[in-house]
Amino acid sequence: MIGFGGDYTPEQWDPETWAEDDALMRRAHVTNVTVGVFSWATLEPEPGRYDFGWLDATLDRLHRNGVGVTLATPTASPPPWFTLAHPDAMPVTADGVRLTHGSRDTYCAAAPAYRAAALRVTSELAARYGSHPVVTRWHIHNEFGSLCWCSHSAEAFRRWLRCRYDLASLNEAWCTAFWSQRYSSWEQILPPRATQYLHNPGQLLDFKRFWSDELLAAYTEQRDSIRGYSGAPITTNFMLPSWQNLDLWRWSREVDVVSVDHYLSSVDGLEGHADIAFAADRARSFNGGRPWVLMEQAASTARVDGVLAHRAPGRIVLDSLAYVARGADDVLFFQWRASRGGAEMYHSALVPHAGADSRIYAEAVELGETLERIGSVAGAMVSADVAILYDADSWWALETRSLPSDHLVYLDQVRAAHRALWQAGVTTDFAPVDGDLSRYRLVVAPLVYVMSEGAAETLRSYVRGGGHLLVTFFSGIVDSSHRVYLGGYPGALRDILGVRVEEFHPLPPGGTVSLDDGSAGTSWSERLRVEGASVIASYAGGWPAITRHSYGAGTAWYVSTQLWSASFLADVLRSAGVEPVVAALPAGVDAVRRGAHLFVFNHLDEPVKIPAAGTDLLTGRVASGAFAVPPGGAAIIREAKRPPALPPTAACSRSGQSPTGDR
Amino acid sequence: MIGFGGDYTPEQWDPETWAEDDALMRRAHVTNVTVGVFSWATLEPEPGRYDFGWLDATLDRLHRNGVGVTLATPTASPPPWFTLAHPDAMPVTADGVRLTHGSRDTYCAAAPAYRAAALRVTSELAARYGSHPVVTRWHIHNEFGSLCWCSHSAEAFRRWLRCRYDLASLNEAWCTAFWSQRYSSWEQILPPRATQYLHNPGQLLDFKRFWSDELLAAYTEQRDSIRGYSGAPITTNFMLPSWQNLDLWRWSREVDVVSVDHYLSSVDGLEGHADIAFAADRARSFNGGRPWVLMEQAASTARVDGVLAHRAPGRIVLDSLAYVARGADDVLFFQWRASRGGAEMYHSALVPHAGADSRIYAEAVELGETLERIGSVAGAMVSADVAILYDADSWWALETRSLPSDHLVYLDQVRAAHRALWQAGVTTDFAPVDGDLSRYRLVVAPLVYVMSEGAAETLRSYVRGGGHLLVTFFSGIVDSSHRVYLGGYPGALRDILGVRVEEFHPLPPGGTVSLDDGSAGTSWSERLRVEGASVIASYAGGWPAITRHSYGAGTAWYVSTQLWSASFLADVLRSAGVEPVVAALPAGVDAVRRGAHLFVFNHLDEPVKIPAAGTDLLTGRVASGAFAVPPGGAAIIREAKRPPALPPTAACSRSGQSPTGDR
Amino acid sequence: MIGFGGDYTPEQWDPETWAEDDALMRRAHVTNVTVGVFSWATLEPEPGRYDFGWLDATLDRLHRNGVGVTLATPTASPPPWFTLAHPDAMPVTADGVRLTHGSRDTYCAAAPAYRAAALRVTSELAARYGSHPVVTRWHIHNEFGSLCWCSHSAEAFRRWLRCRYDLASLNEAWCTAFWSQRYSSWEQILPPRATQYLHNPGQLLDFKRFWSDELLAAYTEQRDSIRGYSGAPITTNFMLPSWQNLDLWRWSREVDVVSVDHYLSSVDGLEGHADIAFAADRARSFNGGRPWVLMEQAASTARVDGVLAHRAPGRIVLDSLAYVARGADDVLFFQWRASRGGAEMYHSALVPHAGADSRIYAEAVELGETLERIGSVAGAMVSADVAILYDADSWWALETRSLPSDHLVYLDQVRAAHRALWQAGVTTDFAPVDGDLSRYRLVVAPLVYVMSEGAAETLRSYVRGGGHLLVTFFSGIVDSSHRVYLGGYPGALRDILGVRVEEFHPLPPGGTVSLDDGSAGTSWSERLRVEGASVIASYAGGWPAITRHSYGAGTAWYVSTQLWSASFLADVLRSAGVEPVVAALPAGVDAVRRGAHLFVFNHLDEPVKIPAAGTDLLTGRVASGAFAVPPGGAAIIREAKRPPALPPTAACSRSGQSPTGDR
Repeated sequence: MIGFGGDYTPEQWDPETWAEDDALMRRAHVTNVTVGVFSWATLEPEPGRYDFGWLDATLDRLHRNGVGVTLATPTASPPPWFTLAHPDAMPVTADGVRLTHGSRDTYCAAAPAYRAAALRVTSELAARYGSHPVVTRWHIHNEFGSLCWCSHSAEAFRRWLRCRYDLASLNEAWCTAFWSQRYSSWEQILPPRATQYLHNPGQLLDFKRFWSDELLAAYTEQRDSIRGYSGAPITTNFMLPSWQNLDLWRWSREVDVVSVDHYLSSVDGLEGHADIAFAADRARSFNGGRPWVLMEQAASTARVDGVLAHRAPGRIVLDSLAYVARGADDVLFFQWRASRGGAEMYHSALVPHAGADSRIYAEAVELGETLERIGSVAGAMVSADVAILYDADSWWALETRSLPSDHLVYLDQVRAAHRALWQAGVTTDFAPVDGDLSRYRLVVAPLVYVMSEGAAETLRSYVRGGGHLLVTFFSGIVDSSHRVYLGGYPGALRDILGVRVEEFHPLPPGGTVSLDDGSAGTSWSERLRVEGASVIASYAGGWPAITRHSYGAGTAWYVSTQLWSASFLADVLRSAGVEPVVAALPAGVDAVRRGAHLFVFNHLDEPVKIPAAGTDLLTGRVASGAFAVPPGGAAIIREAKRPPALPPTAACSRSGQSPTGDR
Repeated sequence: MIGFGGDYTPEQWDPETWAEDDALMRRAHVTNVTVGVFSWATLEPEPGRYDFGWLDATLDRLHRNGVGVTLATPTASPPPWFTLAHPDAMPVTADGVRLTHGSRDTYCAAAPAYRAAALRVTSELAARYGSHPVVTRWHIHNEFGSLCWCSHSAEAFRRWLRCRYDLASLNEAWCTAFWSQRYSSWEQILPPRATQYLHNPGQLLDFKRFWSDELLAAYTEQRDSIRGYSGAPITTNFMLPSWQNLDLWRWSREVDVVSVDHYLSSVDGLEGHADIAFAADRARSFNGGRPWVLMEQAASTARVDGVLAHRAPGRIVLDSLAYVARGADDVLFFQWRASRGGAEMYHSALVPHAGADSRIYAEAVELGETLERIGSVAGAMVSADVAILYDADSWWALETRSLPSDHLVYLDQVRAAHRALWQAGVTTDFAPVDGDLSRYRLVVAPLVYVMSEGAAETLRSYVRGGGHLLVTFFSGIVDSSHRVYLGGYPGALRDILGVRVEEFHPLPPGGTVSLDDGSAGTSWSERLRVEGASVIASYAGGWPAITRHSYGAGTAWYVSTQLWSASFLADVLRSAGVEPVVAALPAGVDAVRRGAHLFVFNHLDEPVKIPAAGTDLLTGRVASGAFAVPPGGAAIIREAKRPPALPPTAACSRSGQSPTGDR
Repeated sequence: MIGFGGDYTPEQWDPETWAEDDALMRRAHVTNVTVGVFSWATLEPEPGRYDFGWLDATLDRLHRNGVGVTLATPTASPPPWFTLAHPDAMPVTADGVRLTHGSRDTYCAAAPAYRAAALRVTSELAARYGSHPVVTRWHIHNEFGSLCWCSHSAEAFRRWLRCRYDLASLNEAWCTAFWSQRYSSWEQILPPRATQYLHNPGQLLDFKRFWSDELLAAYTEQRDSIRGYSGAPITTNFMLPSWQNLDLWRWSREVDVVSVDHYLSSVDGLEGHADIAFAADRARSFNGGRPWVLMEQAASTARVDGVLAHRAPGRIVLDSLAYVARGADDVLFFQWRASRGGAEMYHSALVPHAGADSRIYAEAVELGETLERIGSVAGAMVSADVAILYDADSWWALETRSLPSDHLVYLDQVRAAHRALWQAGVTTDFAPVDGDLSRYRLVVAPLVYVMSEGAAETLRSYVRGGGHLLVTFFSGIVDSSHRVYLGGYPGALRDILGVRVEEFHPLPPGGTVSLDDGSAGTSWSERLRVEGASVIASYAGGWPAITRHSYGAGTAWYVSTQLWSASFLADVLRSAGVEPVVAALPAGVDAVRRGAHLFVFNHLDEPVKIPAAGTDLLTGRVASGAFAVPPGGAAIIREAKRPPALPPTAACSRSGQSPTGDR
């Protein structure tokens, strides 16, 4: 079964509306709703006084209606009384501004009073509903990621540092000999607060790591409390936008199933699917390849250029299927019913302000029916021969000011690599820099700026053992303390790549650099010498631009500018033995195989013929040679002949997770 | 008599300059100057010690010179000693920054110490000069509008809320069930200070309303104190730029005569007159149609694109007449003489830095003579058949972040509506959403986003009773607590308009949408269904764009995009029976009738012939058929045959105002 | 001898690297390195405990290696322990944000605790190394210029004001009668902290002056302490970017030799040399025409459009020679060896991350050899017939908001004037507005907005005595308290220029104004009448644009827009009898004479022939008629026949400086 539903906030509505909700959920084949996110002030209207009546009634009502519940802890938004009781637990910005309630997420997660209050309300909730049959999943907090620079944060930061350093090694790691920053006692160490000029890069990077871990501790203490009362799977929703305060590989090990929020950056069909593929491939990879949960998407809109733009009619269904194609076993929305007021009153919902007499709700019904029809897909795996390295450290380190270019955006580079492979028709996983890469034919390393010696050794073994590695510019430059590897760039990878770079020549915005194969790079160039590698393309000035190096039993390519030439990528894929999902598909048609099912999305204005034999779950049509997929349409073909079975996935070892996932 | 003069600050100058001022004022026919704005530190150099000597001398000297005085209370800028005595009365920003003196307007108007000090100095001033014969008008404070987020403000905000809500109704009005914002005691309610993410829309709107009322209380307590000593009319100057912290309809009821400051946004003649018409029509409407006071305009300059641009020669006179044409009985300037130093040293003045030997002063003399010549215009009324709704709530609510479009600017939409009618040659009033509209043939409602049920009922009665209503997009969407009317937009107006909107499709900046009549809209579009209305024009995709609905005895049009097509507007005006002031005027010629006088401004490069009989007050010429107005020139024709008398204006009932106004 | 070297931070490295440093410095002919900048935390690891061991060893090692040392005091970056001991000495922004350590320069230089601690560590350093033979120069602090708005700053600001004003004269100077700002006691006076609206212009200007003097006091108290232990010359490095918190004329009187930091704004050869000429001519002029020290330049990079761009190969040498050509006797770099980590890890260095096997280090070696070869240039003077006025007051005052144009940037206007003269092949000095101008044939006054009566009198005497003066728009407008000279602009210069301006008509960005000679001005225009001057060019509208006035025995030109027409400038130069260094040089060839040496830089793509007789120090070639300088190359011709000797320079009288400078 594919789960379908969304965030549900009955506390905003009256009994008449509840009754309508019940009917509309049944009509739309809703299977699961998320209840309780941001309900703290309702559940605990005064400190220590709990009011569970409305929630008892809600869960019972949903249960009677046949709808499962993902029960959320309400800790992402403390009630106003909390501010007055614990002003020291309100967060402080780097500039020293103390925030107050009036929005959401206004707390310092390192403040003892906050942590205690959050754990208390969670325990009460878990104790009461731990064995309620309607609760199929727990959802802790919401979109963890708020940072703070207050004195509680300072203390927690120091505690975190003391687990990793003594003062001497910290001074060494942060290069405090520069600018007279040497620390002579622990209490001198502060968060990177407002200061006169540039911050210390090592301190900035460790502060981000600290917060990811501190928030993770806030998560795990809630999780462990719930575990005492309930055996249902526990998760929290990861944000997958262009914003990152968590090391999601590390977090993924602590959830029973990975769930993500994904808000489209474009309502254009093709662009939207590229965006969905990028998010879904990450979500699946975080979950070790197993099915995952789309916890939130917007029903219809994306904010583009400062306006709320709607998806075209039909695309609520098509886009949702695209998540399923890449491993989602739950397609959930924020939110079920649009709020009358509050800060997100214009956030789109399955039941819009116009009510059930609307094209959006009609499409929700169609989606519910469709998901029911394709339930056999659930549980199946997606496999990939290619992995893209994805690294929180590099993301964080690249946010430092005064690097060689102000214009490099980590996520854009990763997205460009994924997009190139997606356009080549190849299904892609993501992998951490220190994971087991042995099952991949090709590993792509875009802008892996930070590289520990251990990670470099992982890549070294991978290539030496016959792997294929494609590295792009400004990768392997600094160690895990944000210190340059000396002697020529990229210090961590020089031997693997067989190159040595003396100087970076980043390009200004809009700047390009010509290559002798007629192509042109953007963003970056380098003064590069080969030391063992062969030159595939050179800059107009004669310096090598793209190289290939045989290393051990494998091959390593290096691209020293931003350039994803289709022909070069085709060569690399051919060398690595990587095949597209469906051979010779025209551009604009997206195909991905999930278990025995071939998903095809046709973004063209004309039908496309897909060579396959089996049954299209969407239409029920059976064919033995080929399926015609209509323009702007999709097919989900249960193939007559399954592809050969793949070995079980084990790239990212995970702990504390039930082997069967959440269903 | 038309008043002429400006702000006068003799405290900045020496006796020699005073003597020159006397002579230059006489030469320029100055009738009235404003004295005492920002004079607090001079009047009360130390707490409780008053120095009135210089002001005694100034008033006596002006009196001897035949110049009347608008005497201002100095409370817009407390002296530096006030900061040190009452640091708690300094304002605090939403980010928690406590401001200090060193500029102007640096106080929290909700701080008891400020209010007490302001009232004290005002009472002293009123006691001393309440019966001085030179004082013809009182001017309280200056450009009220500074907000604050401090703890005094918090307390006053709570007091204001407690007059309107109990805790339960406040939680309901602000939809605090969203994001766990439920308040369980009054002291939890704070101003919308810096917080983690989006603010509560209801709280934001009430905070604006609170401040408008709190400032109004600061005004009225000064007014009531003066009233004890003087019978002269009392006012304060409203700012009419693209900035709004006051509900000016509400404020207008508390002044004896409306006075406004207006700074041009363009020095181009035609653009400038559109801007003047927009300001003057509002000022007149605030004053219930009666003559009003232009308290401040810049002598010659407007800041455009970051530079001080000068009006073209002759335009000081022409632009001033444009204010008179639309009801101003006083044309005053900031300021009489340009300051040598201080923050506004480059603000233009009637006597510029260059002195009396300058084209600006020469033009001031010409203006003084001209105003004297047209004195018979004073007191006459301007009447209009069309009203544009103008609404502080909608302005404020549209400043909320995360509405469907970030690019909608309330004032721009109102300005566009006014501009379209101005170009059609029609004179326009403004009206509040809950006023008596019965005397208007046509009411235009541009972007009246907030609409109470009462206001909707007012419009309903108006149309039902035979009125004509033209509504533009995103009007009638939310109630007065910023909560959406459910069931389809625009909830408050669906029955009147006969339409139902499911989805907003705002356009990005620069985006356009085509209509089937060949025109193109900007800013906005909608997915609209008619429910009784007929379709006048449709979007290229087929959805209705512009509709017309017969409702009761009247007609209601709806325009769902930003589009002021001249032909559509002509149709609407024709249906409503609205005529231009002068038929068939070419574009670029502006005509308005004030009482028995027809004002004509010719912005073309060639003469224009105006069919009229009477005397041109500017030239003294008499004609019985037509007047030729020269290119770039004007005529003020006292018409031989007056138009039929109009009923007395009573749109906006006003209290505490002497029936004769201020003259 | 021309000094060569850079900042050296052995505390960041290990003994193995020190040994390599020794060898590489010898190979590169390094003569002098700067040690100790930012070493406070290393030198005084705990309050009062000093650790000089590493510095003893470093100085001895450098001495053994034949490398001299510029020894820096470490006071630009207090150690973290300082923050905890003296939280009140951390700086506060105008918005009230208290900064903390974690970067550099985080202190309030007016805080007594900071000043005491800085003086203590400096005294310890001076006592220990005052007579060490390797120390050839002292370098105090680093790039003075950090401001603060805290209460210590407020107190110091008041002290500074009390030396210059009584309360009455302060109120008069700041025009506090405007906006009720009159001060009735000293404690009411604060730094210009965050306030409601525009600041007082006089207060802003005095606050900048105060800080320049307060920082100078911090400098001189360190200098005087060192003087007690050492006879070596003492300096501090001035920043020459588009940023200015110091009155460098005043500071120059307190250093034994002027040293400057200069970071290129462009890596284009020709643009780079224009930039170098602009910086070097200022540095030389600050030093009274005597040789000066280039304390810091970047080895290879400039940050342009947000990316680190490299100079082209060969340009490290060529650009360094351009500084020497204009008087530098030391060519030093930040820094010797690139840091592994820290905020400036990507700052380029003579030994880059790639190490000695790099084109940058190779070029450093070539530069060292070249400087050795041209050692005879050292000590020689550069003379100029033209001076450009350069004025800190005007710079500061023009940063005030709400002047007639938001788009005027002081430095850009000065740069434009210098660039025009540089393109005309003329060597230019800079001069303060109140210096002795008698030795210059032509004085150019670009945007000298602030002009004291004394400065105006200086210019008056200069022109009356036969001098030639070229003034550009918006000069001589306000007095030294930022108060307008009344009666027509430019009040301070009307008699000299023979013009009177009534109105400024600044142009918006991109705006132009046509002149009747076919040229077009930008930025500014005016409504100008001649009162004695003759008109050279007029605006299309007929008003004069460029004028010429005979005054006494001299001539004064006025240009009322931004326009540097080559033909007009040629006329002015001809009138003033100013000749280019080499007649009839093509554009793109830069020539300057330093003592007996003619430096020529050819930026063209073809060779250029220079008429000269003598020896080219770079090639050793001897010629008697002409030298061919290759494209992109240079020549340093020791001329057979020296030009006639020039009178000794004495434009800027200087105190406390050894007559022989620092070598």
